[in-house]
Amino acid sequence: MEEAPRFYAHPFDDDKLKEECGIFGVIGVTDASNFVALGLHALQHRGQEAGGIVCHDPELGFNSARRFGYVRDNFTSADIMETLPGPLAIGHVRYSTAGSKAAVIRDVQPFFGEFSMGGAAIAHNGNITNALALRKELIERGSIFQSSSDSECIIHLMARSLQKDIPDRMEDALRRVEGAFSVVAMTRTKLIGVRDPLGVRPLVIGKVADGWVLSSETCALDIIGAEFVREVEPGEMVVISAAKGVESRRPFRPQPSKFCIFEHVYFSRPDSIIGGQSVYETRRRIGVELAREAPVDADLVCPVPDSGTPAAIGYSQESGIPYAMGIIRNQYMGRTFIEPTEQIRNMGVRLKLNVNRALIKGKRVILVDDSVVRGTTSRKIKEMILDAGAAEVHFRIASPPTAWPCFYGVDTPQREKLLAATMSEDEMREHLNVDSLRFISLDGLYRAAGEPEGRNNACPQYCDACFSGEYPVEPSDMVAKGFQLKTAAE
Amino acid sequence: MEEAPRFYAHPFDDDKLKEECGIFGVIGVTDASNFVALGLHALQHRGQEAGGIVCHDPELGFNSARRFGYVRDNFTSADIMETLPGPLAIGHVRYSTAGSKAAVIRDVQPFFGEFSMGGAAIAHNGNITNALALRKELIERGSIFQSSSDSECIIHLMARSLQKDIPDRMEDALRRVEGAFSVVAMTRTKLIGVRDPLGVRPLVIGKVADGWVLSSETCALDIIGAEFVREVEPGEMVVISAAKGVESRRPFRPQPSKFCIFEHVYFSRPDSIIGGQSVYETRRRIGVELAREAPVDADLVCPVPDSGTPAAIGYSQESGIPYAMGIIRNQYMGRTFIEPTEQIRNMGVRLKLNVNRALIKGKRVILVDDSVVRGTTSRKIKEMILDAGAAEVHFRIASPPTAWPCFYGVDTPQREKLLAATMSEDEMREHLNVDSLRFISLDGLYRAAGEPEGRNNACPQYCDACFSGEYPVEPSDMVAKGFQLKTAAE
Amino acid sequence: MEEAPRFYAHPFDDDKLKEECGIFGVIGVTDASNFVALGLHALQHRGQEAGGIVCHDPELGFNSARRFGYVRDNFTSADIMETLPGPLAIGHVRYSTAGSKAAVIRDVQPFFGEFSMGGAAIAHNGNITNALALRKELIERGSIFQSSSDSECIIHLMARSLQKDIPDRMEDALRRVEGAFSVVAMTRTKLIGVRDPLGVRPLVIGKVADGWVLSSETCALDIIGAEFVREVEPGEMVVISAAKGVESRRPFRPQPSKFCIFEHVYFSRPDSIIGGQSVYETRRRIGVELAREAPVDADLVCPVPDSGTPAAIGYSQESGIPYAMGIIRNQYMGRTFIEPTEQIRNMGVRLKLNVNRALIKGKRVILVDDSVVRGTTSRKIKEMILDAGAAEVHFRIASPPTAWPCFYGVDTPQREKLLAATMSEDEMREHLNVDSLRFISLDGLYRAAGEPEGRNNACPQYCDACFSGEYPVEPSDMVAKGFQLKTAAE
Amino acid sequence: MEEAPRFYAHPFDDDKLKEECGIFGVIGVTDASNFVALGLHALQHRGQEAGGIVCHDPELGFNSARRFGYVRDNFTSADIMETLPGPLAIGHVRYSTAGSKAAVIRDVQPFFGEFSMGGAAIAHNGNITNALALRKELIERGSIFQSSSDSECIIHLMARSLQKDIPDRMEDALRRVEGAFSVVAMTRTKLIGVRDPLGVRPLVIGKVADGWVLSSETCALDIIGAEFVREVEPGEMVVISAAKGVESRRPFRPQPSKFCIFEHVYFSRPDSIIGGQSVYETRRRIGVELAREAPVDADLVCPVPDSGTPAAIGYSQESGIPYAMGIIRNQYMGRTFIEPTEQIRNMGVRLKLNVNRALIKGKRVILVDDSVVRGTTSRKIKEMILDAGAAEVHFRIASPPTAWPCFYGVDTPQREKLLAATMSEDEMREHLNVDSLRFISLDGLYRAAGEPEGRNNACPQYCDACFSGEYPVEPSDMVAKGFQLKTAAE
Repeated sequence: MEEAPRFYAHPFDDDKLKEECGIFGVIGVTDASNFVALGLHALQHRGQEAGGIVCHDPELGFNSARRFGYVRDNFTSADIMETLPGPLAIGHVRYSTAGSKAAVIRDVQPFFGEFSMGGAAIAHNGNITNALALRKELIERGSIFQSSSDSECIIHLMARSLQKDIPDRMEDALRRVEGAFSVVAMTRTKLIGVRDPLGVRPLVIGKVADGWVLSSETCALDIIGAEFVREVEPGEMVVISAAKGVESRRPFRPQPSKFCIFEHVYFSRPDSIIGGQSVYETRRRIGVELAREAPVDADLVCPVPDSGTPAAIGYSQESGIPYAMGIIRNQYMGRTFIEPTEQIRNMGVRLKLNVNRALIKGKRVILVDDSVVRGTTSRKIKEMILDAGAAEVHFRIASPPTAWPCFYGVDTPQREKLLAATMSEDEMREHLNVDSLRFISLDGLYRAAGEPEGRNNACPQYCDACFSGEYPVEPSDMVAKGFQLKTAAE
Repeated sequence: MEEAPRFYAHPFDDDKLKEECGIFGVIGVTDASNFVALGLHALQHRGQEAGGIVCHDPELGFNSARRFGYVRDNFTSADIMETLPGPLAIGHVRYSTAGSKAAVIRDVQPFFGEFSMGGAAIAHNGNITNALALRKELIERGSIFQSSSDSECIIHLMARSLQKDIPDRMEDALRRVEGAFSVVAMTRTKLIGVRDPLGVRPLVIGKVADGWVLSSETCALDIIGAEFVREVEPGEMVVISAAKGVESRRPFRPQPSKFCIFEHVYFSRPDSIIGGQSVYETRRRIGVELAREAPVDADLVCPVPDSGTPAAIGYSQESGIPYAMGIIRNQYMGRTFIEPTEQIRNMGVRLKLNVNRALIKGKRVILVDDSVVRGTTSRKIKEMILDAGAAEVHFRIASPPTAWPCFYGVDTPQREKLLAATMSEDEMREHLNVDSLRFISLDGLYRAAGEPEGRNNACPQYCDACFSGEYPVEPSDMVAKGFQLKTAAE
Repeated sequence: MEEAPRFYAHPFDDDKLKEECGIFGVIGVTDASNFVALGLHALQHRGQEAGGIVCHDPELGFNSARRFGYVRDNFTSADIMETLPGPLAIGHVRYSTAGSKAAVIRDVQPFFGEFSMGGAAIAHNGNITNALALRKELIERGSIFQSSSDSECIIHLMARSLQKDIPDRMEDALRRVEGAFSVVAMTRTKLIGVRDPLGVRPLVIGKVADGWVLSSETCALDIIGAEFVREVEPGEMVVISAAKGVESRRPFRPQPSKFCIFEHVYFSRPDSIIGGQSVYETRRRIGVELAREAPVDADLVCPVPDSGTPAAIGYSQESGIPYAMGIIRNQYMGRTFIEPTEQIRNMGVRLKLNVNRALIKGKRVILVDDSVVRGTTSRKIKEMILDAGAAEVHFRIASPPTAWPCFYGVDTPQREKLLAATMSEDEMREHLNVDSLRFISLDGLYRAAGEPEGRNNACPQYCDACFSGEYPVEPSDMVAKGFQLKTAAE
Repeated sequence: MEEAPRFYAHPFDDDKLKEECGIFGVIGVTDASNFVALGLHALQHRGQEAGGIVCHDPELGFNSARRFGYVRDNFTSADIMETLPGPLAIGHVRYSTAGSKAAVIRDVQPFFGEFSMGGAAIAHNGNITNALALRKELIERGSIFQSSSDSECIIHLMARSLQKDIPDRMEDALRRVEGAFSVVAMTRTKLIGVRDPLGVRPLVIGKVADGWVLSSETCALDIIGAEFVREVEPGEMVVISAAKGVESRRPFRPQPSKFCIFEHVYFSRPDSIIGGQSVYETRRRIGVELAREAPVDADLVCPVPDSGTPAAIGYSQESGIPYAMGIIRNQYMGRTFIEPTEQIRNMGVRLKLNVNRALIKGKRVILVDDSVVRGTTSRKIKEMILDAGAAEVHFRIASPPTAWPCFYGVDTPQREKLLAATMSEDEMREHLNVDSLRFISLDGLYRAAGEPEGRNNACPQYCDACFSGEYPVEPSDMVAKGFQLKTAAE
């Protein structure tokens, strides 16, 4: 119910799960929006479709800008940044859920609402699993939705709360929503951060000069020279003001935490630190575990760039087989091509990757990739490698088979499209037609992620629903639409 | 003398020498322009500022498009590609020589001229060292120049030739020009490739179905599935037609070849093959040589991404010190930001690189980079590494000290700005304030580049003027402007 | 609270009152949006800043597009019109209230709301005089406003209505609003038109093939070849469906009608017919009345183009003084220049008008203009005429002195800025420094507008608040802000 | 051989001859480009497709900008005007010769050439009738053309001249060209104006403060407040410098002048003065002559807006039949729509004109138009008038039948498309199916244009080739292409 952007991008099948958002906020600095722009640039891997910034200045009030495209193209010119003044700002980058629907600027966060006690803006990473039910209820009571985003429910719930101040209204609203969410919000004078009771999505607190920062990941603290203070804890709300600093609240009933283990495998940047652990180091250890669990005699260990690199290094170190760049990535390939011709679209993976032919020829090659989703890219890579004359191709995958969709803020194909939902590991190897294919075990992954005893099956230390089908929060909207949860038999 | 493009980009100091062009052409295929677009995408590392395509269709004649920006953004939509029909096309990507002057679309190649016997288009990689003298002479005789490009001389020389056909006119014209040049040109029915007598810049021939391809590098043959046939030889002109295939001519007096050794060090893509050698493998061997020439006790070998990676792998393999990703590159950083704010501009290298803090802390780190030009980036990287808590920082550079500007198609700072022009290796170490700094020797580099005996000082096998100051062709325009050649004493 | 459009226009002081909107809708035709685009083009004089179309197709649902700029530039390409399919569509053009605030696309109508029984869109011409009070009440009850437009209240009032279908909800909503409004709205199957009880703004019904049309003016029926059926009556709601044709409702308590007399003077197009009278003929008769009320000996009668033309023709016919084009209008002057330089901005009226020097020199000139608002343009025109050598300048104005602001959908300066609010007719003549200045009387205007007895002062036949200060509906928001109504003494 | 502009406009058949250019230059003022922009805005009726400005500043050298679209949209922002500094500038607006070929920015004037003695820019109104022959000769001698414009020949002829300074080279060049041309040119220090020996196209000299102006028409002097000095005489070259003022040269052999009589009929603006006569007054007198030559009993005299207006006023005054606005022009219709849908394109004349139905109904109407070219618009207007219920329709045309194409800078259809080339006046009346149709006689036109004795058939006082077929300069390129000149028999 709104016009499409003028150019819409055609995403190439790069066959990955997609994080849907990155969030960032800062209070107590001059030109807060500039900091937010830098932070969002560092979080761009969490969402490349669009970005938005809302800011507040005591004299000039709230201002905002939302744009399709990269932060570096939209939020760097003096022209735009001068329209975003003030010491308090929040921002959001989002991933395209393209294909199904045209992207609309109205869906780009942060969302803003004018309440009787003043304005508030909110940016959200995650997914509200009862959003459809809430939306229906709110429309029946007279709310008018402006977007198709699940996050807009929060603003409408806040508008209807009877609480007198905005943080209280936000508590009210968030107690009604289910699912996974990290939130960065702002009023005229406060910066607010929240994580859901399970703490599925990350959120950290930083300090820069006299100001405070909230960010999805620590890598975005580094870019602005901010010091890492601590993580917002699962179920915690922090309300930060210039006057009082960080105040902590606990709006929810406590629960065992379930951080998303796929943040370690793929979503987060390798230079971020999560739960006290280096993401890079976790990934390298996955490679070490893989080399122990699934050794093979070969000449070269090559990463599928760039996400397979740390695990490939680990595999090489543990196995003693030389590490090499067998596949070269084109640095000038964006995530998308603009309206490509049919011929170019059919080039698929070639636009992005090329085999280092002189290196590969006649060699037995171990390819280390982070995950297999639909398997389409894996097939094309295998073909390129064989075309270049490799003697053998062995796939080693740095995560267990992805057999279940995520409903907590990650864009996954429908279950039927997941290769591992319909095939055993052996069938997948035949389907991909490679000399060997091995995934790391769930226990191996947990060990690499800092759990020396592996997975606690009674109460897993992480959310691993995409591998195990064990959903820590029932995805009620999806169940209402007919999604089949895992049965005891599975 | 022409309007500036609407948005001009601010290049960040990433302190590298810049190749100025990539060229590509194809004949005898359906929709030749689509192939050219793919080829230019694969050659984008040779020039990111702008690109152009000229094509010819027997019915629709010549058509062209020239645009600022990446190939993937300009030459992929059906909209534009449908305006570029026909079985014969050539293309060009160019690097910005920004800073001094605003970029103008008139300077974007290929250049086109309408001669009495029909039109011709020409794309050029290299630099004509007597262009200013030629330009002055041509203007005095009534030629009207439309660009500030040295390459336009070739078209005007062709227009004044008395020869009856276009390849003959091109021979006439090229015999008048001095310097380094690889040329891809086209008439209505022919695809033409030329390399200067020294063969300074690369150019290769490929075959795709019934058609023929000319390309700066082999990696652009791979993207369209073309087979590598051979290199155009130094001093050779090839005239390719559907009817007669490849005809070879020798317009110039033979000379010993002087291929640019910096193509091996940095310019070419690692998956290209030059002179029968894998660029990746040459770079890895440079790392091996460096480890032998300049060993040091340390905990980690880290590349400065992405160009230092192969040499870092080689150094690690030879030294036994573990290879690690100590510096993480932001994938969403383009080469430029559009009109950045002062604050963002000052962020410099941080927008592009971040230190993997958890890994680096307390470690003795060897950083492998491809070259040191002005040293500005090296300083910033060192500071980032030390801020992150490294115990020691050792720089190992995969090329000798860059002490002389290139006049053969590479954008280099003026001599005074080159760190190695004014400092000894030891002074540079002090200037950068690192624990050690070592460059590979010229002999070591030649060995890695396939010359087991090292450099033949009597008649070097490569052009290495940027390291040695020995220019194989006198840069006459520059000398006329007062440039001081190396004296016997130096 | 939203970004400004990329280019914002600088309106030149052309010193006119501005109609704020034109509305148009059609049902029961193929490609209804194309008809709406044509209708809006014919209504462009009622609003030049922006336009929007919402349409509905049984299969493709609701679609919309909103753009800044002219209809001819935004809603004519196949590209955009193909995204607006279906047999039912409404549209809106709006005038810029620029200056005070940046224009925002969110304020561009039609507005859309998704209700539990389906979507509805609404386009509004007029002004809701209690909008601020309603807005405050709605926000307190949890509504989230997305625009600064008074019209958005209607959608929120509808959302909160307990009625079961949309026309009933609209009745509910409109009974809560005060002021002047003509509304065109649509549901999935119905086209709805409403005029406020006083009928201040126009709205007519037309018939085209099997379909029905609603339009602000009859000139927009002509462009699509539609037949004029009748006016929507003051206080009437018409609900039009393919099945049942036009159904009439009467949601409001009956009141004597008060059509805006300024529609006759200036707002409506001369080829429209209002209340059974030709606008052109009314204006010509104003000239006739003026010639009787305020004769003067002179050589030429010249219109101030283009709005003064019919009255100048009438004045010439009644007085026998020759009609001539003494001032030539530049056809290529839009209503605005884009970001003009200071020098160009200072050119003011010269960019738009030029004196026909050869004609004017030495002549006694009667200038006929439609109105005097701030008097700034009148002064400049007088200076141009004198510079060109006119012997005498006599102004004749086709409306009474404009001494009061309009609160019913017309953009007027604050009262202090209106020349007639602070000066007598004689003071104005001195201020403008012309040989004579005369306005038509209120009675003369009413006679020209078809009331042979002139104005019925007990119950005026038109709304003439801008001349008389007698507001037929109290402008309650403005009074709350301190606006002083006319006292008995005035 | 160059990319098309991104949006190309579809001109509607408004069935007029089109002037192809307006030219303007100024020297000796601060920010000369701002004056040029204003002058071009006043000359926009002479060319609406594109405009260009070249300027020179002693420190910043030559700068230029060329854009598609209106002056008011392209040359008014501080942004662009600040890039055009200096006390000397020239500019050009051009009409689209669209249809045959896509418009290209390279064809937009002024053209610029860098000669050995410095740069020069040139803007041209008219047409060089031996341009194809010159072009062929120049290409054979080595010139490389950058545009398809006939005007580019002048620059290349100048480049090959052996004269030492630019005005002398221009004399050399212009002596080689045939046809009709008014030229405004500039060097670094001089402003140059030339008219061809016949003086077909206009060019006037003005004075503004200490500076000098050259302009196609006097209306563009008015807009900048410049004083009219005199016309450049046929066959005169004026060289204007700050130091020496206006110097006059006579490069050509004297000939009797042949000013284009159609400038009086249609091309020039009514507020311009040509040859000492007011264009408005000439047009009014044409109406008077028409009323004498072709009287008819009727109720109303209505102009076809806007160009028929002065003649309609004259006809009304002479005949005593009331003048009225029977056809209303939509002010928001540009000359083109951007890529209109088929449906909109078919609306043709309705988008631009509407009948004032209430006025026309039952009346006998005289329609006064300036010319009949193909007759397509006349037919549509007649249909609209009859649809609205007119009792009779009488066409009176303010020019003789247009039976021959113009080759002197006006865009005319091929001869076969001209209604008067194939039909007698009576056949045209039947074809248009109107009650009467009369054209003014050639003698009547000459009388109105200030020749009391009418046309001197032995040596006509004007160029009237479009009416008479008597071409004062043989159109040699066209004759070479097969155009048939008038035979003695015709």
